[in-house]
Amino acid sequence: MNGSLGKLSGVRNLAADRLTAEQSGALEGIAASCRLDSVMMTAIAASGHTGGALSSIDIFNILLATADLTPEKLTAPGRDRIVASHGHTSAGFYSALAAWGFIDRDELVANFRRAGSPYQGHVERSVPGVDWGTGNLGQGLSAGVGFALAARALGEERRIFVVMGDGEQPKGQVAEARRIASKEKLRSITALIDYNGIQISGRIEDVMPADIPALWSADGWEVIECDGHSYPSLYDALRRADASESPAVILCRTVMGKGVSFMEGTEEYHGKPASGELLAKAIAELGGDMAELERLRALRMSPLPKVRRAVSPAPSLDLGAPAVYTAQDKKDNRGAFGAALADVAERNYGAAGRTPVIAFDCDLAVSVKLDSFAKKCPGRFIQAGIQEHATATAAGAASVAGVVSVWADFGVFGLDETYNQQRLNAINDASLKTVLTHVGLDVGEDGMTHQCIDYVALARAILGCKIIVPADPNQTDRATRWMLGQPGNIFLAMGRGALPVILSEDGAPFFGKDYAYRYGGIDRLREGRDATILAMGHMAGSAIAARDALAAKGISARVLHSSSPLGMDASELVSLVGAGPLVTCEDHEADTGLGAAAALCLARAGVAVRMKNLGVTRYGDSGSSKDVIARMGLAPGDIAQAVESLL
Amino acid sequence: MNGSLGKLSGVRNLAADRLTAEQSGALEGIAASCRLDSVMMTAIAASGHTGGALSSIDIFNILLATADLTPEKLTAPGRDRIVASHGHTSAGFYSALAAWGFIDRDELVANFRRAGSPYQGHVERSVPGVDWGTGNLGQGLSAGVGFALAARALGEERRIFVVMGDGEQPKGQVAEARRIASKEKLRSITALIDYNGIQISGRIEDVMPADIPALWSADGWEVIECDGHSYPSLYDALRRADASESPAVILCRTVMGKGVSFMEGTEEYHGKPASGELLAKAIAELGGDMAELERLRALRMSPLPKVRRAVSPAPSLDLGAPAVYTAQDKKDNRGAFGAALADVAERNYGAAGRTPVIAFDCDLAVSVKLDSFAKKCPGRFIQAGIQEHATATAAGAASVAGVVSVWADFGVFGLDETYNQQRLNAINDASLKTVLTHVGLDVGEDGMTHQCIDYVALARAILGCKIIVPADPNQTDRATRWMLGQPGNIFLAMGRGALPVILSEDGAPFFGKDYAYRYGGIDRLREGRDATILAMGHMAGSAIAARDALAAKGISARVLHSSSPLGMDASELVSLVGAGPLVTCEDHEADTGLGAAAALCLARAGVAVRMKNLGVTRYGDSGSSKDVIARMGLAPGDIAQAVESLL
Repeated sequence: MNGSLGKLSGVRNLAADRLTAEQSGALEGIAASCRLDSVMMTAIAASGHTGGALSSIDIFNILLATADLTPEKLTAPGRDRIVASHGHTSAGFYSALAAWGFIDRDELVANFRRAGSPYQGHVERSVPGVDWGTGNLGQGLSAGVGFALAARALGEERRIFVVMGDGEQPKGQVAEARRIASKEKLRSITALIDYNGIQISGRIEDVMPADIPALWSADGWEVIECDGHSYPSLYDALRRADASESPAVILCRTVMGKGVSFMEGTEEYHGKPASGELLAKAIAELGGDMAELERLRALRMSPLPKVRRAVSPAPSLDLGAPAVYTAQDKKDNRGAFGAALADVAERNYGAAGRTPVIAFDCDLAVSVKLDSFAKKCPGRFIQAGIQEHATATAAGAASVAGVVSVWADFGVFGLDETYNQQRLNAINDASLKTVLTHVGLDVGEDGMTHQCIDYVALARAILGCKIIVPADPNQTDRATRWMLGQPGNIFLAMGRGALPVILSEDGAPFFGKDYAYRYGGIDRLREGRDATILAMGHMAGSAIAARDALAAKGISARVLHSSSPLGMDASELVSLVGAGPLVTCEDHEADTGLGAAAALCLARAGVAVRMKNLGVTRYGDSGSSKDVIARMGLAPGDIAQAVESLL
Repeated sequence: MNGSLGKLSGVRNLAADRLTAEQSGALEGIAASCRLDSVMMTAIAASGHTGGALSSIDIFNILLATADLTPEKLTAPGRDRIVASHGHTSAGFYSALAAWGFIDRDELVANFRRAGSPYQGHVERSVPGVDWGTGNLGQGLSAGVGFALAARALGEERRIFVVMGDGEQPKGQVAEARRIASKEKLRSITALIDYNGIQISGRIEDVMPADIPALWSADGWEVIECDGHSYPSLYDALRRADASESPAVILCRTVMGKGVSFMEGTEEYHGKPASGELLAKAIAELGGDMAELERLRALRMSPLPKVRRAVSPAPSLDLGAPAVYTAQDKKDNRGAFGAALADVAERNYGAAGRTPVIAFDCDLAVSVKLDSFAKKCPGRFIQAGIQEHATATAAGAASVAGVVSVWADFGVFGLDETYNQQRLNAINDASLKTVLTHVGLDVGEDGMTHQCIDYVALARAILGCKIIVPADPNQTDRATRWMLGQPGNIFLAMGRGALPVILSEDGAPFFGKDYAYRYGGIDRLREGRDATILAMGHMAGSAIAARDALAAKGISARVLHSSSPLGMDASELVSLVGAGPLVTCEDHEADTGLGAAAALCLARAGVAVRMKNLGVTRYGDSGSSKDVIARMGLAPGDIAQAVESLL
């Protein structure tokens, strides 16, 4: 194989005008071995998507031959990237990565889809050469957009290739990504569609007709067609795409199951391997032998290969000095976030050695307070329109490509609408900072469709992420700066309204200039001995008001605040709550947020306390936030009453 | 006003060839009063989206004049329906509904966006004449598709009008809905775009360029343009759309803020009302007076108007006889669902007085076991392609329009990918039956991207819905039949693999022929005295195996099963669990599913027990389900060990 790769060095970066016959033959030889490996690995795993792997192999192969991407350059800045959007063609992509030296071929073929191995059924970042894990269709182009935007912010010349299936073309997110690429003039992106005409349920025109060339063209892409199994044709198409002034898509006409007679042109092998006599036939047609298959099958008993875990480095940023808001300031948390982001981004903008900060908006910049950032950091603000799905994935992918990536949106769009994109960001070990404004009932008069009352519930279901719900503008400022310096997926959630600054008993800001954000910490806002009120976010102020009302009646309540309900230290909580009673209060569903998290901590610790969980119990009203919150039974008087009812 | 309406009776159902000057003038008069009401109600509410309301009013007005929809026909079968996809133009739609007698005008203008009133900020079904609540953009056309498909199944001739904004056109879900309509030849749908060229952040071509006519045309729609403020032009366009052989879209050229000089052509009043001197100016320009404004403002102090709650009747279906699977049957729950659905659907297919059953698929019919239904019920199976967002909304809307609507998909698509669409189905009091297959780790070798490990967590965050996770094929059969006869949004969740039938100690099927599905019930699979194992779904079989292993060691464990973790009766649970110890086990995140629900029940009851919650704690492996589950620590031996550790 190495001899073949050597013959192909002239085509790296599309340097040659065209392929020689010898180069084309060398590529065909590599592809033949990849097809054989794909058939063998799916057979050994007794599962997998063989048909699409075989039709996509020539595309993966030409890209690995021509892209500025080699095993030596795996983490180099400025290298090209390849995204396989139709992640179920993993056998094809993996086999090509093995052929080009990114991974060990025997290890791959033996351990494909083996529990605990890195070679999962859909492409994952645990495999060197895979920059973005996919599998839920329609997301790959968005990831490519994110990579291209990150490269632009870094000033890198980087090509992004996105290989897609034809069955996924109708997915709406594809169109959204196309438009962002077009608007942002991301000519560094080339999409290649494995146009085999077949999806699980049959022919694409029967399952869901779509005029694929017309749709790409309408969104401003150059449309190029080629024979997806002819290397001269593929190479020529890539050269044309490279020269295009707009982003380009190559429709690669292919044959499902290419290379195995009984798999060609049928959906039967979309999602299954060959077996029995047909397996022997397939292997014979591809020039392999059964002894090699059995040798590799035996290797599946070996110890599991190591899983590489993608690591995103912490960004390099000057996080600036805290802004301290005083009792006189009437400010919303949104404003404090926007000011802190703009401050940090501006002080690092263009500074040597600093990580660029980019921010995504979906037509709400003024409401989500990205406007100041946009003014101060030209070229770093991306207006993505009302296209949240593509934005969520693009912002997520950018976050693993060398920039600090921030997306600010209303809670119902930044999390509810894009839950699955955020889940896949988590699976990809991304480092996205999603700022959710207008959460809870504090959205102004917009009404129930705009009330994100499940932000903690959803964040909790995304493994490994953090969510921060600050109490006031001071804590928002500190949390924003802290978050920007951290790796990992973090949500920062806040309502719409202006809030009083939380003060200590002495009247000074509780989250003053010496306060450093501590994720997981429980803030002891007031001490007391008869009961505990545990609040989240803007309910902290109401909890203090309730506490003051109770004090007037001779009841002494402790007030705690958790800005990180998923990170609460259980033993700290247990020791603070003691024997109770406990009232939790949150501008969030009563059964799935702070109260539920606290209940789980207590139940697991084997502690029983008298407890009431105040929160949202129905879809809310449309009116002023104050009225809407009061009608939900979450006013200070309701909190005080709940405490009294437990005494 | 009644005089005006009388003059217009000739244009109902587009009966006249064209509008007379008198009719056109009457419509203009109605529109003028609607514009005034829109400005007044947003001013009184001190919030609202004035600009788009003013630009859309002529569209709403011509539709209410010509559609087969009057206050008398509000619930009539076969009537036309109007969906406002850009729900923020509520002031415009509501004012037109008031002008046409659907709601009381004074009550509306006084109580718009008042907490507790039916007149929410975004259109909701609490307002007569609103068939689908919207607000999160891009969903209205999908709802229209659902209404048209329901009408077809009912054999009704019904026109569906979908009014849309131009800013929402880039949203991917719009394109998905377009394609379903085209494929299904839903010429009963007419979309009307309020083409004012402006969205929140500015001109649409600056925010996110999109070639709107080309995109609709590429998806097979007839594109018609008209002057959106000229009644003859609007009427003529509607007639052309009505005659079109394909679904048609009318691009209505309009002016943002039409009718108020300082609001015209600017985004400034997209999301706010006029106030102060400008309010007086607006009212003067629209021919109103401030005294009337103050009269209406004073009415806001009156008692709240009553909120109408949309009610979906229970379907009329013969639910058939249970299928009983025995110990010899090795069947997956999917198969039991598919067989039960096909049985119920077939026995009611075409039967007089029965509710039609329709089912939606996203290119996975064989995997989700809709294939038998598709064969037995011609015309009732909708292949929607890989377009889950539009499918979720279309299926939801169909469920409130006279049919039993079923959507079966993998868990990650039917819930994770479409969480927000499902949330809005819930807000709309829909009655969708979503069948989630391939949930948990039991997905075969597909790997982490396809493992829906958060189905209970997400269902729990959707207020008012139910989720059912049956233990075996028998319970699946019973739950399927029960679900099909119920109103409301219900999820039915199951893994991929074949399962042993759960047996009683005497060897007979536990969920035998006399078992009736009881939502909320806790199934007492085995009795015991030393500890309790509480399992969900297919973990029931593993829990029994663990119990048998413990019995061999002299430990007596009770085995409970909950198929309805969100509906568990807390007092029943507390009485069954007693003083513990308790081990919960589920093929779902350990912190957000059955274990968390049980912990919350116990904590709220003030009961402390020794407890362990076994479940999914990281994104999973790719391999055989058995291996993947074992590597997550959820094998029977792990359950037994957890019990022992608590003794």
